[in-house]
Amino acid sequence: MKHSVHDLIAVQFSRSLLGLKGLLLKARAHAETRKFDENLFLQLRVAPDMFPFVKQIQITTDGAKGAAARLTGKTAPVFADNETTLTQLIERIERTVEFLQSTSEKDYEGYELRTVSFPWNPGKHLQGFDYLSSHAIPNFYFHMTTAYTLLRSSGVEVGKGDFLGEQNWIKEA
Amino acid sequence: MKHSVHDLIAVQFSRSLLGLKGLLLKARAHAETRKFDENLFLQLRVAPDMFPFVKQIQITTDGAKGAAARLTGKTAPVFADNETTLTQLIERIERTVEFLQSTSEKDYEGYELRTVSFPWNPGKHLQGFDYLSSHAIPNFYFHMTTAYTLLRSSGVEVGKGDFLGEQNWIKEA
Repeated sequence: MKHSVHDLIAVQFSRSLLGLKGLLLKARAHAETRKFDENLFLQLRVAPDMFPFVKQIQITTDGAKGAAARLTGKTAPVFADNETTLTQLIERIERTVEFLQSTSEKDYEGYELRTVSFPWNPGKHLQGFDYLSSHAIPNFYFHMTTAYTLLRSSGVEVGKGDFLGEQNWIKEA
Repeated sequence: MKHSVHDLIAVQFSRSLLGLKGLLLKARAHAETRKFDENLFLQLRVAPDMFPFVKQIQITTDGAKGAAARLTGKTAPVFADNETTLTQLIERIERTVEFLQSTSEKDYEGYELRTVSFPWNPGKHLQGFDYLSSHAIPNFYFHMTTAYTLLRSSGVEVGKGDFLGEQNWIKEA
């Protein structure tokens, strides 16, 4: 059982995004119990000059769909980045997972020959694997963890298990 | 150029840990400018019931050396987890990078057949790749991001570039 880039992107980012969806559902339940508007979470920030919660979710999902699109050549869904509700963020996560899961092992063939460039670093590119390992994966978890931290520090009862999501534990005989 | 598990662990975790060392050096410079004891960072927490900064660094390094040890069968350096200074944490990061870099491509052969279990989940295990993708990588970045957030929210001028570390950008002709 060799691993594949499909597993690192489509399988693992989906697992994490479903964990993230679970975090948002816990935030919703928390707001309901405390009787405040659940959409207030969207503007929370760790520091005044860091992006708010809504943007952390936008970047997390963009990172996942962007990695899948850049390494398969498929076209990712485009979001308007205008979410104002928790419900809209949950839909965004779900649509991202759908896109990830629409990619197959075969779609990633030749990913190592693809190059990835960004408007903020003109005239330079990363090769497929370097992009995945040194940019896409750490950046994805950076923003997902920041979203987690915002909920955790607001009193929402979330833990590492929620962050990691459903794992393939094998029961020993 | 196919990627390898050695690249995901030894190369990428080293890159990130050197980024983390850079973050600590920025924290040191910040404390120097503001004239406070740099070791005060070690007890910072995001929330009262989350681990302090010192423990975030301990877990980040443990995650990296643990992944390399579990998937190669090599013995990782053991740390006493008694750091009280930023200097000691920097040394811990450096020793972890040394261990990661002492592992070779060949050491990871057969990693997919290895199983990984933890005392907190008795009677169950994860297979090599599932352990790496669904546990070791997200957990590593979870704790590294939490350490970053503690510095960022304390006013240390750190940014995404510090977090990602040195990347293999290729200049276009």
